[in-house]
Amino acid sequence: MENFTFENPTKLIFGKGTISRLATEIAPEKRIMVCYGGGSAKRNGVYQQVKDALKDHFSIEFWGIEPNPDYDTVMKAVALARQNDIDYLVAVGGGSVIDATKFIAHAIPYDGEDPWQLAIHNELITRSTPLAVVLTLPATGSEMNHRGVLSRRRTKEKVSFITPFSFPRFSILDPEVTYTLPRKQLSNGIVDSFMHIMEQYMTTTGNSVLMDRWAEGALLSLIEIGPKVLEHPTDYDTMANFMLCTTMALNGFVGMGVPQDWATHRIGYELTILYGLDHAETLAVVFPALLTILKEQKKEKLAQYAERVWHIQDGNTDQKADKAIEKTVTFFRQMGLRTRMSEYGIPAEAVDIIYQRLKKSGAVYGEKKNVDAEMARAIFAQSL
Amino acid sequence: MENFTFENPTKLIFGKGTISRLATEIAPEKRIMVCYGGGSAKRNGVYQQVKDALKDHFSIEFWGIEPNPDYDTVMKAVALARQNDIDYLVAVGGGSVIDATKFIAHAIPYDGEDPWQLAIHNELITRSTPLAVVLTLPATGSEMNHRGVLSRRRTKEKVSFITPFSFPRFSILDPEVTYTLPRKQLSNGIVDSFMHIMEQYMTTTGNSVLMDRWAEGALLSLIEIGPKVLEHPTDYDTMANFMLCTTMALNGFVGMGVPQDWATHRIGYELTILYGLDHAETLAVVFPALLTILKEQKKEKLAQYAERVWHIQDGNTDQKADKAIEKTVTFFRQMGLRTRMSEYGIPAEAVDIIYQRLKKSGAVYGEKKNVDAEMARAIFAQSL
Repeated sequence: MENFTFENPTKLIFGKGTISRLATEIAPEKRIMVCYGGGSAKRNGVYQQVKDALKDHFSIEFWGIEPNPDYDTVMKAVALARQNDIDYLVAVGGGSVIDATKFIAHAIPYDGEDPWQLAIHNELITRSTPLAVVLTLPATGSEMNHRGVLSRRRTKEKVSFITPFSFPRFSILDPEVTYTLPRKQLSNGIVDSFMHIMEQYMTTTGNSVLMDRWAEGALLSLIEIGPKVLEHPTDYDTMANFMLCTTMALNGFVGMGVPQDWATHRIGYELTILYGLDHAETLAVVFPALLTILKEQKKEKLAQYAERVWHIQDGNTDQKADKAIEKTVTFFRQMGLRTRMSEYGIPAEAVDIIYQRLKKSGAVYGEKKNVDAEMARAIFAQSL
Repeated sequence: MENFTFENPTKLIFGKGTISRLATEIAPEKRIMVCYGGGSAKRNGVYQQVKDALKDHFSIEFWGIEPNPDYDTVMKAVALARQNDIDYLVAVGGGSVIDATKFIAHAIPYDGEDPWQLAIHNELITRSTPLAVVLTLPATGSEMNHRGVLSRRRTKEKVSFITPFSFPRFSILDPEVTYTLPRKQLSNGIVDSFMHIMEQYMTTTGNSVLMDRWAEGALLSLIEIGPKVLEHPTDYDTMANFMLCTTMALNGFVGMGVPQDWATHRIGYELTILYGLDHAETLAVVFPALLTILKEQKKEKLAQYAERVWHIQDGNTDQKADKAIEKTVTFFRQMGLRTRMSEYGIPAEAVDIIYQRLKKSGAVYGEKKNVDAEMARAIFAQSL
């Protein structure tokens, strides 16, 4: 096992009727800005619950955080917060709203000239406005982790920032708020959280007995819950199980002392930036192709995954690995996602366009830092 | 799933050579008291590592915290800390030293007349001296939770106290410090952590898909690791896996939104108080008998446990439940523990003595609050 430091101070408040806890969890003298996305919070009743809970606090609202939140949008929120002496933020939404609010929290007290530097050089983040979350879309795990992703459309950049200052003080997860989510967002949420586990698990065998079991346990849970979520999206226990899985998929609980991969996430960003795919769609396209290209490297772990998660006992290591990849594709498709670039209308030229961009950036990804521009080209060619 | 609030702010510092981190994790101006047990820290080299790490801090030492720490002992530590204006505590040891240090942390700033009240009425604990841990004996999970157990031999009491102020600020877990542990303490540690998982798992089915998987994953891990720990207690990865399992067994990670039991722990205390059994020994005696007596109530979950943890696929629910109990007994015995009162030389009269004590206390335990004095009598009679 590798040496590690684990810390996750976020308080999780989970269950029916818990949005009202905003009233008591935030000190009465705080000046709050509540950050929202595009308006779904008004349609599903969450807006009214938040408003009722904060009726005795000073609070203002910022609306309009878009999917894949943009730097220009969050800087408008920063300006509004500064004008109003805001000292507490509440993100009401899914990963995009939460990630944006994390960046807003870091940028408000920052007195440097160019706040974009905070997204690039995370060590510049040394204090932040405290933030809480009311989660409406289970998927990214941002409600209980120190990660965030920010885009800058003007410069075609998408960066991931990590800092302990990004942990929310508390997050409220009421499964009832998920009942009105569009089917597409449920599908994406299942695949997104499945892939968060996979990035921490699909490396080599023998690193941590317990972390492997917990990762496999979370994968088994998502495989069991996934079809039920799509069939019964207003069943409380189903949605509670779903919500808990998505949060636990990326809060550090399955990643202690083990190598991690994340190449699928990182090269997948290109498909969002260039062709507008949803984040989960990029994962469903890239991951099966990555496993095929890196099969030799990941074969032993693929066989373990085949045995323990898909109950495949027949065949040799190689055959088990192949079957595990097939099963994974089938699961993504069962969840309603397409798994090839061509199915999303992306032309074959994309392979070379992405190759050129990655070559220019010089970045290398993956557990063994061997997913460079060349290997990414092979992966995208495989995924056509 | 039940509504729940989860919070665990303890920072875990895990791996080889990490004791030196004490130097930087505690602010230089702190006045530290380091709390020790009976002297094993001097024999295994941990004492010297702690001393070296704290060489630039002001620090004093308190020695002599006994197994099942006693109120009179901890109050001597409180007096010493007050005399020296101590404002940071470091527990170096296993569960007993950590639990004692937690109580010392609560008692130092308490200005009430009778600090024992803090152990009984936990809501009286409203501030505490910060504390850190260097773990030397993996077993209780106290290094990453808000629980503690304190005994008062003078009055034959043993109480468990729970408060968010009991979370250590950080805990250092270096698997290498476990190499010199006596075999008996390793056996106890495995059974103790196995039972911590069981108390959170062996209730009813269908509460949480993920928590069930994680509990089963931890049980599978301990079953795999247990024999290796006894055979190869100086193998780094084996001991690292063991140490991680024991911490994760009782830090809230497998207990979210699920009913819990804890009857085995609570009625098992009697065997420690009256007959001096180690804590883990009481669990190995009580649990199989409790499962036998409560088989009807726990049958469905026992069958799930049989299938997923012991891979028992044949037979009906009843037969699976029986086999699961047998397998559990076999595992405890394989770990070197005896599982019957008579094997520890406890006479048959004990059953009635304990019955009278429990009847007098009037307490009821277990997930369904039906383990009263009568049922405890049946359980102890079964365990003779």
